[in-house]
Amino acid sequence: MRLILTYFLCLFSFPAHAGLFNAQSTTLDNGIEVVIIPNHRAPIVHHMLWYKAGSAQEINGHSGVAHFLEHLLFKGTNHPDRPLEAGEFSKRIRTMGGKDNAFTSKDYTAFYQTTSKEHLNTLMQMEADRIRHAMPPETHVLSERDVVIEERNQRTENNPQARFYEQMQATLFPNHPYGRPVIGWREEIRVMSHIDTKSFYDRFYHPNNALLIISGDITLENILPDIKRIYGAIPAGEIFPRHFPTLPAFEGETRITHSEQQVKQPLWMRGYRVPSLRQNKEHALALQVLESILDGGPTTRLYKKLVVEDKKAIEISLSYRSDSYDTSSLWMSAVPAEGIALPDLETDIDMLLTQLIKKGITDQELLDAKTRLKNAAIFARDSLSTPAHIIGRALTTGSTLQDVETWDLHIDAVTKDQIQSVSELYLNPKNRSTFNYITGFLLPEKEERNE
Amino acid sequence: MRLILTYFLCLFSFPAHAGLFNAQSTTLDNGIEVVIIPNHRAPIVHHMLWYKAGSAQEINGHSGVAHFLEHLLFKGTNHPDRPLEAGEFSKRIRTMGGKDNAFTSKDYTAFYQTTSKEHLNTLMQMEADRIRHAMPPETHVLSERDVVIEERNQRTENNPQARFYEQMQATLFPNHPYGRPVIGWREEIRVMSHIDTKSFYDRFYHPNNALLIISGDITLENILPDIKRIYGAIPAGEIFPRHFPTLPAFEGETRITHSEQQVKQPLWMRGYRVPSLRQNKEHALALQVLESILDGGPTTRLYKKLVVEDKKAIEISLSYRSDSYDTSSLWMSAVPAEGIALPDLETDIDMLLTQLIKKGITDQELLDAKTRLKNAAIFARDSLSTPAHIIGRALTTGSTLQDVETWDLHIDAVTKDQIQSVSELYLNPKNRSTFNYITGFLLPEKEERNE
Repeated sequence: MRLILTYFLCLFSFPAHAGLFNAQSTTLDNGIEVVIIPNHRAPIVHHMLWYKAGSAQEINGHSGVAHFLEHLLFKGTNHPDRPLEAGEFSKRIRTMGGKDNAFTSKDYTAFYQTTSKEHLNTLMQMEADRIRHAMPPETHVLSERDVVIEERNQRTENNPQARFYEQMQATLFPNHPYGRPVIGWREEIRVMSHIDTKSFYDRFYHPNNALLIISGDITLENILPDIKRIYGAIPAGEIFPRHFPTLPAFEGETRITHSEQQVKQPLWMRGYRVPSLRQNKEHALALQVLESILDGGPTTRLYKKLVVEDKKAIEISLSYRSDSYDTSSLWMSAVPAEGIALPDLETDIDMLLTQLIKKGITDQELLDAKTRLKNAAIFARDSLSTPAHIIGRALTTGSTLQDVETWDLHIDAVTKDQIQSVSELYLNPKNRSTFNYITGFLLPEKEERNE
Repeated sequence: MRLILTYFLCLFSFPAHAGLFNAQSTTLDNGIEVVIIPNHRAPIVHHMLWYKAGSAQEINGHSGVAHFLEHLLFKGTNHPDRPLEAGEFSKRIRTMGGKDNAFTSKDYTAFYQTTSKEHLNTLMQMEADRIRHAMPPETHVLSERDVVIEERNQRTENNPQARFYEQMQATLFPNHPYGRPVIGWREEIRVMSHIDTKSFYDRFYHPNNALLIISGDITLENILPDIKRIYGAIPAGEIFPRHFPTLPAFEGETRITHSEQQVKQPLWMRGYRVPSLRQNKEHALALQVLESILDGGPTTRLYKKLVVEDKKAIEISLSYRSDSYDTSSLWMSAVPAEGIALPDLETDIDMLLTQLIKKGITDQELLDAKTRLKNAAIFARDSLSTPAHIIGRALTTGSTLQDVETWDLHIDAVTKDQIQSVSELYLNPKNRSTFNYITGFLLPEKEERNE
């Protein structure tokens, strides 16, 4: 199944109006949250069940369990009336002409399907059965673990950039669940057991820790009786609040240099700790606009200056995730042009950041950034699945539906001063009072040393 | 209380004979291990109670609990017949003319007293009461937490070297309990509660997880009845085996550079992951001799070459801890001479290591190292407390009394080839197949960058 480490769409916005998605929502008696996003263009539905638990809820020493459990949910259910064999779930969806998948992140796990509308009730019943009746046979647990190991080999072990990012993440979030990879540390994946996943399942897979989102050719009024009958019948479980340790400050500037043979192309990275929407809405919104100003395409600051004009880099990017339950991160990375050393490239990047902090942005940049955000959002609204994903991420990380529906108004209200202020606060390489970042150099193996 | 992060005596050895300490040992029915080290020079005793639990047994997110609990054990007991008020324990020891203290490490926690022999039974009863009857009043818990915070402020927060070592340790042991500081992460100390420490106490403070060591003017024969009556009366508890995650390999060379204003003196550090005695006795013994060859005083390799001859460094040291339950570490650190850059110093150090690996050591070096180890051990044997500490550390980290008693024979058997072999295996900066180390630069704050 897909392991989503970066969101496939981070930018979204809409012209100002009553609500971006006109989503309808309710909460059933057993605690399950329900969001319906009516979209009547075609007689199809996108059905998603989200759990407010991801890798951040794993017990130390058992990393990878949230993601592994996601895999195991495709390995059969033992509901007395409607048992399903391993693999049967996806097979049935395909028989309906639909498709299904799932993903795990640090704060949530989600399962989703797209089918024609007539199959929605069958689909809901199948998904509802997975809330408390997943029952993978032991042989499938072991073979699926090999699948996950192979997944990690392909995505991480054989990819020095991915391993370096893992190391940077661990350093940016020491002693914090966000410091560990969602897929899990290699050696811990190797020993994951049925008991580990069962325990995670029993702690977090309950209706009162779940969020049902259906977008498509339905309304809350006409589907609610079915939802109540199917999802409302599952008793609530005991759910514990999410807890995160406070991150220690860095007190100084920290740099990691990693060199190895597999690396062919040097890479510069920087990770900043910044607030999530849940932690500081005003700052997070300003950071979203700032992200678009700095990294919104070939005409924006970083790319234009470093790649197009100065030809110091062949690639540069910046990404910020506002939907994080605890402290979020903003990552910058750059690949230097031939012959450009990483420290030189870094000096140029820091100069651009310092300029931004000192002189701020222009009215045109602010306008362009907001326009880009809105354009991306208009595109998103055309999709059946994207609004469901956006709402799911928001509601599982501490935001409300109201926050999502009025997001465009808040983005429109972001000012140049706010942008300058968050730049100063979070991205200032000279700010000696709040060291909130680490810098990394990934390099090809060094020359042999003289003896 | 004292927090021992580095052992006060790492070198010990003795001329070959039946047993180094001639210690006597037994295990009572309730599982408590007893070691008596007869020493009849004076009518005094050194009494130690060790628990086979330290910071490595803490639950993630609750770092510092083992050490905090050690403090709280001085805050009163509630034995029905012999309750003690907070502070009363140490006060009584002082009244006896004795002294007492305690320390916590990653693998163990120990409490000890020195008094005249006539008070031994009283002392044992007081210590035995702390195994299951510690009962600190809530007000003392809160005020003692402030004491620990202040301890951390003084030792770590105000000391950039200590914070850097903490960061290096976390990077050398990612996702592993040895990666966290024994005293605990600052933010976690601030929220430590009575419940956290009580839970640690109830899991690990049982006679079958304890080791009693008494050295002094006694023999096992004459003291055993008292030990049985006092310590043997405490019922065994449920003890779970220690579990450690496997460490992921580094796959390449990793370097951390940390610069901050408080740093006045640059510092070079390198940490290697190496086996402990429990994990690989032959390699650990060779590493002990190697440590003495490289860092045994002004005439040994590193110091002589870098400080005395080349004047590249003003300080250089190497330390290896063989008594670790899980993977151990070998640390090198160096302070450059005025005007010498850290990369230059590192090149020289790596050249010395490469020479060692290629050419090995001389017979004289091997002989000198063994002699130094023996001299240190002869000194240790004069002490009442040192043999007890040595045996305690060994027996709480997976070694046996037999290992300790015959240690000198094993050290004598270490060959030049073995030294060269462990140098090649663990200290080779060019060994691209087993990256087992990280390197760190601690620097004064950088010059302001140009704009």
